[in-house]
Amino acid sequence: MRPVISLTTDFGTTDHFVGTMKGVIAKICPDANVIDITHDIPAYNVLEGALSIWPAWRYFPALTIHVLVVDPGVGSERRPILARIGGHYFIAPDNGVLTFLLDDIERTGPPPDLHELTTPAYRLGTQSVTFHGRDVFAPAAAHLANQIACGNADLSSFGPRIKDPVRLQLEKPTRGPDGVVTGTILKVDRFGNLLTNLQAADVADLQDQRFALNLESNRITRLLKNYMAGKPGEPFAIFGSSCVLEIALNRGNAAKQLGASPGDTFTLTSDA
Amino acid sequence: MRPVISLTTDFGTTDHFVGTMKGVIAKICPDANVIDITHDIPAYNVLEGALSIWPAWRYFPALTIHVLVVDPGVGSERRPILARIGGHYFIAPDNGVLTFLLDDIERTGPPPDLHELTTPAYRLGTQSVTFHGRDVFAPAAAHLANQIACGNADLSSFGPRIKDPVRLQLEKPTRGPDGVVTGTILKVDRFGNLLTNLQAADVADLQDQRFALNLESNRITRLLKNYMAGKPGEPFAIFGSSCVLEIALNRGNAAKQLGASPGDTFTLTSDA
Amino acid sequence: MRPVISLTTDFGTTDHFVGTMKGVIAKICPDANVIDITHDIPAYNVLEGALSIWPAWRYFPALTIHVLVVDPGVGSERRPILARIGGHYFIAPDNGVLTFLLDDIERTGPPPDLHELTTPAYRLGTQSVTFHGRDVFAPAAAHLANQIACGNADLSSFGPRIKDPVRLQLEKPTRGPDGVVTGTILKVDRFGNLLTNLQAADVADLQDQRFALNLESNRITRLLKNYMAGKPGEPFAIFGSSCVLEIALNRGNAAKQLGASPGDTFTLTSDA
Repeated sequence: MRPVISLTTDFGTTDHFVGTMKGVIAKICPDANVIDITHDIPAYNVLEGALSIWPAWRYFPALTIHVLVVDPGVGSERRPILARIGGHYFIAPDNGVLTFLLDDIERTGPPPDLHELTTPAYRLGTQSVTFHGRDVFAPAAAHLANQIACGNADLSSFGPRIKDPVRLQLEKPTRGPDGVVTGTILKVDRFGNLLTNLQAADVADLQDQRFALNLESNRITRLLKNYMAGKPGEPFAIFGSSCVLEIALNRGNAAKQLGASPGDTFTLTSDA
Repeated sequence: MRPVISLTTDFGTTDHFVGTMKGVIAKICPDANVIDITHDIPAYNVLEGALSIWPAWRYFPALTIHVLVVDPGVGSERRPILARIGGHYFIAPDNGVLTFLLDDIERTGPPPDLHELTTPAYRLGTQSVTFHGRDVFAPAAAHLANQIACGNADLSSFGPRIKDPVRLQLEKPTRGPDGVVTGTILKVDRFGNLLTNLQAADVADLQDQRFALNLESNRITRLLKNYMAGKPGEPFAIFGSSCVLEIALNRGNAAKQLGASPGDTFTLTSDA
Repeated sequence: MRPVISLTTDFGTTDHFVGTMKGVIAKICPDANVIDITHDIPAYNVLEGALSIWPAWRYFPALTIHVLVVDPGVGSERRPILARIGGHYFIAPDNGVLTFLLDDIERTGPPPDLHELTTPAYRLGTQSVTFHGRDVFAPAAAHLANQIACGNADLSSFGPRIKDPVRLQLEKPTRGPDGVVTGTILKVDRFGNLLTNLQAADVADLQDQRFALNLESNRITRLLKNYMAGKPGEPFAIFGSSCVLEIALNRGNAAKQLGASPGDTFTLTSDA
């Protein structure tokens, strides 16, 4: 079995950081199949890191090790952790980057198995206090990959169990007494689609042309099933591939046209 | 035999899209060697997608599977297709992204074998109408890679044969009665080189200092064999690695210096 | 043994260049594990190429082949070279991109084994004078990878030995009669950290709050061990993961806040 390791970081691709992590992995586990999710998480933006792995991980093979390094607290007391969730492994600083995964899993299954990474043998001996991607997270992933390839993954060999992982304090959608939902834009994707904090379960009753979503002076009333169905220049709502309600434009950039950005709020009235 | 899959998309590298496609491939064909060509095709720009794979594919191993996802029509009636061309495989939406390859091959060989991707077993069961890169193109590539690894690639297992692939309506160079050729800038590359729509066959008689290429107020009369031969600040013409005539600067950015961009036209007079 | 090849170039990731190099490698050495360090070296910037591989290479497995293509002189008389340094291999144009490695090694060990790449069988037959990444450097790396996989790497099979590799003329830090050191900013990294030309050996006596670093109107007196230890908005000095003294900000962008960029100089007074 060829172990798979995915990488999601805010290291960018202009420096040596990601390449160095991959060198460390190749040294410890030469057979690992290392797959980049993205390294362009905005610097220190834990929320965007959490949003990137969330829609992706289920599409990877079982037992994939997902390494997440968006780590503004490197060198502080924050713990490096290893989690087994949904038959996959996650290695990350304990800063909330696993929030969506933990929320999903705890709704539907047994509590995840979480460990702090403390075992010195699974770190680089030369470890610095500035680059834990290289010195802590990459070696832990590669050693776990070796364990998985041998069929004997043992999370407790990495450090003691923990039960209180940090969660992001997310802006949850609110529903007023009049049924009006207030939501927030979380992220803009590559195509200018606006990702909101509304999940399908939050707006289960949403139907095309039976709602009004108000974002600044824009009023959106269409819920479409694919981007091509949108009329030129007309923004619409859609459940895309990112697990949340998006505001989008057919072949256009909704963020630019609507002048919207992360943190902006909107209201949504059903049965409008 | 380790199957090779190349990826060319307009998905960018800031979101999870490309990583998710690679996760899908790893799940179906763990041994595949997945190679990125580029994911930075400008959003929805089918022409630039076509220009990216064209100079690259012949340098890959025989039987490589090239996946091209620049797909403004995702979710519409446009067909997903699989082609065997020149001993390689191409998987893409049927929107013209294979135009240059088809033109080349049809000039020199038998018509390519083209199939629509319709077989449900070679798609993800959970398929959406927004992300065919993940749900249609990546799984098709991975299943074909498995067939290739077993030595039994069977294109007809993916869907029915088609004979009328979509072509881009390209601005072809024109030659006036006075012999003056009018060409168009198609693309600016990373170094600022201007890629034109003139191929070697279009200007077979071009010789250094025996022509004049007029682009706005600039007059170019040198045809050089390498970038270093250019004098500082002097733009010149060159057949580079992109299969077309380029306008370039030694250690400079021709696009910036000349203020030129895709869509601009120029005239070329031979024997000037 | 699965051979490892790292790639560092200024080719960017928007064109086909890097993908084409990887296709060439896959054709010659299908088993190679190809790892990107970065392709976003600023165009023609040999110094930044040299700075990228320097802190990375030791973290790769022994016998890794590091390919460096920042090559403003492609097509000129500059030699393509292959070096064995510290148990790793380096393939690059002979333009100084190996300067830091050569300096390090010559301080501590035997002179490195350097060869010019001249053997026609280890180049592509179709070689151009514009794209040696594809036609010279990638095939050399892949043929060497095959030799390494067979346990018979033979540098002399690639071409004759050379002894006079080109070095970058670097701005070295200077120390005045008053003990004041003048240093230079070499590079800004992804996080805005300012990488200087001071190595640990240059300022072995540096101690927190026992020095003053003056960069324009900014005075920096803290030497910290990790980024988190910095107070909000307060720039500090740190030995990070890039082998040199950096000027940094905790969760901030030092380059932007200080308005500093490569080439700027600063003074450093110890025992201030």
